Amino acid sequence: MTSGGDCPGLNAVIRGVVLKGIKSHDHEFVGFLDGWRGVVDGDIIELPRQRVRGISKQGGTILGTSRTNPYDGPNGGPENIAATLDRLDVDALIAIGGEGTLAGARELTDAGLPIVGVPKTIDNDLDATDYSFGFDTAVQIATEAIDRLRTTGESHHRCMIAEVMGRHVGWIALHAGMASGAHAILIPEQKVSTAQVAEWVREAHDRGRAPLVVVAEGWVPEGDAEPWAERGTDASGRPRLGGIGEHLAPEIEALTGIETRAATLGHIQRGGVPSAYDRVLATRLGMAAVDAVSDKRWGTMVSLHGTDVVVVPFEEALGNLKTVPQHRYDEAAVLFG
Amino acid sequence: MTSGGDCPGLNAVIRGVVLKGIKSHDHEFVGFLDGWRGVVDGDIIELPRQRVRGISKQGGTILGTSRTNPYDGPNGGPENIAATLDRLDVDALIAIGGEGTLAGARELTDAGLPIVGVPKTIDNDLDATDYSFGFDTAVQIATEAIDRLRTTGESHHRCMIAEVMGRHVGWIALHAGMASGAHAILIPEQKVSTAQVAEWVREAHDRGRAPLVVVAEGWVPEGDAEPWAERGTDASGRPRLGGIGEHLAPEIEALTGIETRAATLGHIQRGGVPSAYDRVLATRLGMAAVDAVSDKRWGTMVSLHGTDVVVVPFEEALGNLKTVPQHRYDEAAVLFG
Amino acid sequence: MTSGGDCPGLNAVIRGVVLKGIKSHDHEFVGFLDGWRGVVDGDIIELPRQRVRGISKQGGTILGTSRTNPYDGPNGGPENIAATLDRLDVDALIAIGGEGTLAGARELTDAGLPIVGVPKTIDNDLDATDYSFGFDTAVQIATEAIDRLRTTGESHHRCMIAEVMGRHVGWIALHAGMASGAHAILIPEQKVSTAQVAEWVREAHDRGRAPLVVVAEGWVPEGDAEPWAERGTDASGRPRLGGIGEHLAPEIEALTGIETRAATLGHIQRGGVPSAYDRVLATRLGMAAVDAVSDKRWGTMVSLHGTDVVVVPFEEALGNLKTVPQHRYDEAAVLFG
Amino acid sequence: MTSGGDCPGLNAVIRGVVLKGIKSHDHEFVGFLDGWRGVVDGDIIELPRQRVRGISKQGGTILGTSRTNPYDGPNGGPENIAATLDRLDVDALIAIGGEGTLAGARELTDAGLPIVGVPKTIDNDLDATDYSFGFDTAVQIATEAIDRLRTTGESHHRCMIAEVMGRHVGWIALHAGMASGAHAILIPEQKVSTAQVAEWVREAHDRGRAPLVVVAEGWVPEGDAEPWAERGTDASGRPRLGGIGEHLAPEIEALTGIETRAATLGHIQRGGVPSAYDRVLATRLGMAAVDAVSDKRWGTMVSLHGTDVVVVPFEEALGNLKTVPQHRYDEAAVLFG
Repeated sequence: MTSGGDCPGLNAVIRGVVLKGIKSHDHEFVGFLDGWRGVVDGDIIELPRQRVRGISKQGGTILGTSRTNPYDGPNGGPENIAATLDRLDVDALIAIGGEGTLAGARELTDAGLPIVGVPKTIDNDLDATDYSFGFDTAVQIATEAIDRLRTTGESHHRCMIAEVMGRHVGWIALHAGMASGAHAILIPEQKVSTAQVAEWVREAHDRGRAPLVVVAEGWVPEGDAEPWAERGTDASGRPRLGGIGEHLAPEIEALTGIETRAATLGHIQRGGVPSAYDRVLATRLGMAAVDAVSDKRWGTMVSLHGTDVVVVPFEEALGNLKTVPQHRYDEAAVLFG
Repeated sequence: MTSGGDCPGLNAVIRGVVLKGIKSHDHEFVGFLDGWRGVVDGDIIELPRQRVRGISKQGGTILGTSRTNPYDGPNGGPENIAATLDRLDVDALIAIGGEGTLAGARELTDAGLPIVGVPKTIDNDLDATDYSFGFDTAVQIATEAIDRLRTTGESHHRCMIAEVMGRHVGWIALHAGMASGAHAILIPEQKVSTAQVAEWVREAHDRGRAPLVVVAEGWVPEGDAEPWAERGTDASGRPRLGGIGEHLAPEIEALTGIETRAATLGHIQRGGVPSAYDRVLATRLGMAAVDAVSDKRWGTMVSLHGTDVVVVPFEEALGNLKTVPQHRYDEAAVLFG
Repeated sequence: MTSGGDCPGLNAVIRGVVLKGIKSHDHEFVGFLDGWRGVVDGDIIELPRQRVRGISKQGGTILGTSRTNPYDGPNGGPENIAATLDRLDVDALIAIGGEGTLAGARELTDAGLPIVGVPKTIDNDLDATDYSFGFDTAVQIATEAIDRLRTTGESHHRCMIAEVMGRHVGWIALHAGMASGAHAILIPEQKVSTAQVAEWVREAHDRGRAPLVVVAEGWVPEGDAEPWAERGTDASGRPRLGGIGEHLAPEIEALTGIETRAATLGHIQRGGVPSAYDRVLATRLGMAAVDAVSDKRWGTMVSLHGTDVVVVPFEEALGNLKTVPQHRYDEAAVLFG
Repeated sequence: MTSGGDCPGLNAVIRGVVLKGIKSHDHEFVGFLDGWRGVVDGDIIELPRQRVRGISKQGGTILGTSRTNPYDGPNGGPENIAATLDRLDVDALIAIGGEGTLAGARELTDAGLPIVGVPKTIDNDLDATDYSFGFDTAVQIATEAIDRLRTTGESHHRCMIAEVMGRHVGWIALHAGMASGAHAILIPEQKVSTAQVAEWVREAHDRGRAPLVVVAEGWVPEGDAEPWAERGTDASGRPRLGGIGEHLAPEIEALTGIETRAATLGHIQRGGVPSAYDRVLATRLGMAAVDAVSDKRWGTMVSLHGTDVVVVPFEEALGNLKTVPQHRYDEAAVLFG
């Protein structure tokens, strides 16, 4: 079962699970459709070997996904789900998802259901795993896009602002910003004033550079209360369009006098062909998950520690967002201005 | 001199001009900086052979660009420019730019200045050339981005709207939409009602597809008066953020009940490494331009006809935007819905 | 039916044929498997609309391909094939293939069979069409690979030789060489001595460049009789490995004293995701082919003239390879050395 | 100083060193040209801040590289080099290179020279670092190329063999093979008979797949004595062309009756734009190296442990190649056949 926002590598996990399960453990597999929705409704498809062939390089998930939770509706909750699994002759569930999915899985496991988790977060915000699949692809796509923006900035002597994903943590911004040589990286973990951003922009401009700012969608300028992405409606009652990047651009232009343009990278960061890194990681996680099932290690999830794939209890992964630590920000900040 | 918005291939033109000019005609070259601004101000850099090495794969322009025009300021106008060229010992000017630049070049040529033009339009909206460099790269980038969006749409059973460049013509939307298998392509040349778009979306959804709409930024829904991009400020007096795609998404969602998301591809379409197609075309145009200079064919521009690079008078290229003809739209529309 | 070597865009042709045929002409479609083999054997699959969804971005061909010819075996030849088509209730055949395929199609058409052709040649060697799909993708892949080779050449002050496809014509080498800034482009159409190549390499090296040579696999050094690719076995009776690039590298190194390495790009040039250009072209050709079928224009093929897709008799396309003309070689040769 | 084979990320290391050194430590920098050659000859260029701008996305190394060693020639050896550093007013040397370079650096450090190392190995064969920059890019390039080969294999029902880098270790083959879904991965660490490879190929073919074999250049079939790459000359005394992939293809075809083609990816794997992953890693390593210099930690190198960059003595990194461990091979081998 795949749940939550889509993420490059989901299909490689599914393929890893199925191939390893068939070849090493003689398991059979079905896939629940559209996340917890399919679990609650008992909506499944067969997953024989030929169904997963060639899918590790496909973005998205062949099982579909949704943001529903396992307690929704008359058929939700642990007892109903246990009955549904029983009726479908399903002995264990591999839940591939983020914080919310794994929290749901934990509650169900506590209630006795046989579940193993696979961490999925494109934002890289889950504790207890060094990296999660999808993150590398997102950083790579963002970096390639920002490389493109730079040539426009340089030709027009403009400041370019690239808004990348990251509602609550700044990992994508940090890595894409370091990779692309940003003169400022703005992340939710660090309050910075617009005046300070303008100062970095001015410094880069004064050295003859076209200033580049990489901003996470969840960044909040010092003095502001809430992320731009959650600002609701505009004065005319319409949903507010644009993101923090588009909002920031005219402010930087006003403060510096330097022509400034924003680009919001948006959904292109989460779709499409996964990077080789993510395919390998996702395949390994899927294979380890099915091993954990064979060992009946319910209530655990697989994770990456260094170069090893290990098994950790759900509780280690949940509760705390993995934010960008101060020393990683400081490391990048040497390059600002 | 490169003028107007930046475009992948500008550096390949410059390289083609310089290498061909040096090797075949024994010319020497300088580059005017930042478009007409540099011409008016007499602001130049030397362009020896080593200055153009390896640049054909660089996006943007090593000469910088701007949107100023040759009549600006006290040093503008044909007489002043003629004096400046004379002072700098410049015998001819190659002007690389779009409609506005070439219109300026034409007036100056009519006033006696020795100018040859190279057409530059990422939107492919210049008459008298089959294709202009930069267009192929923009279509390729847009298509790759849309390929990525599709996997998200399919995983979430969503309608995805991709907004691409094209203020006045829909060539990028037409080609990227055909290449990516769009269920609707919305271009400035064709008024279509939002209800019709919703109908196409519903049809695709009913066949089990995640509907894909590709919309040019300058498209205007039937009944509306002006492009979204020119709507000015919102009700609170702030510049209106977001583009037609973001505006259209909630309308389609309201009409169809299908979750709909928009992505604005924006500036990434015009920057970065040019496609091989554009590098070859740009190199050939640059080489032909310097031949036209040697032949003193002032008042002409180079252009692509079929597989040949030819020379045409400015007046053939100017006056009419090259819009998407009805038969090309009809061809693509077979794929809608 | 798709026949001959695979080529990016084949699936986009198939999709264009099927969607246009269903929507505009109410046709039904089957696909013959593995080129003429499937036609002779009457081996087909159904091609309903859902079978072609999403395939325009897939490389290769969903129908499979082979190099067999329509006269092979006891069921070959026009009369047998006519009987097979009749038995399968097939009213017309769209043959997608190169010189050999179309020559076969022509003979069958002369014998009364209802066939329309679609030109397919990754080498761009078919007369009567400006470009064929697949060529743009091959040039793009080759160019990106050569861009990568250059950084190695520059870091090590080496000469790099890139061998690209092109047994009989040099179009891929010409375009990839111009796009990547080659100091020598070696094509089958032009006999050049190894000493001349060494001279160009030395010139580039003397200017401080890492020399880059792009050579088509079918190039023959002046004085040699036959292409390297057809040299048969080595002195020990084993099939000769490596291509002209690997053969040329030690000779250039010996002549110039400059360390020289070769890379053979090989099959990567013909597989994988087609470029947007090729997807659009292939879709348009497919749609035009099914229109030609509706008009019963047997014995013709669709082709690109400028920006238009037109219909031409087979005989215009056959008989002469479309070689690189002298003026295109001379244009590129300005950049040599 | 950069030494040994080029590798994507070298320039990002240089940039990280220079920017961090200037901003945090107020250092000044020169670059030694062409590896140890420049150190021995005292051949330097200035490396002010503007020299490293924008280089983190450039492949290769702006300093040039070579395979010479620090004991070569009359000016080699620790005493001469110490005198040269002194004369040039160089207080410390950052040596970026692989096993050989670091072994040389260790000897010089033991003789009293102030050196800090940065591990560089595209093959990922250095102990004491989880990953080295360049490896991720190489795997990504190889994977994309293999994705392309697959469509050709599938269209023609062929077995495709992709030969990737890896003379002594199989990391690139392992990761690219897992990422691309190979039916066999052949690495130097594991002796496997050609008959076993043929068996895997046959199994995949029997399931309707186009078999894919990924082979490291240094793989030796069971029973053979030496890697193909070191086979010297052929029976006619010419250097043996082609690699193990080209050699293996006819053998697999003979054993299985399945048409088989090989592609040697070669130098394209080591050049060009580094992946975002490698740019971040390389930048971090460069920054940590200059910190180690400030701390006078001579005789150490920087390395990646988990998500942290740490400092380890040279001796930890040297002596043992980091080979693919048995459990990683077994993990991948589940997918074979």
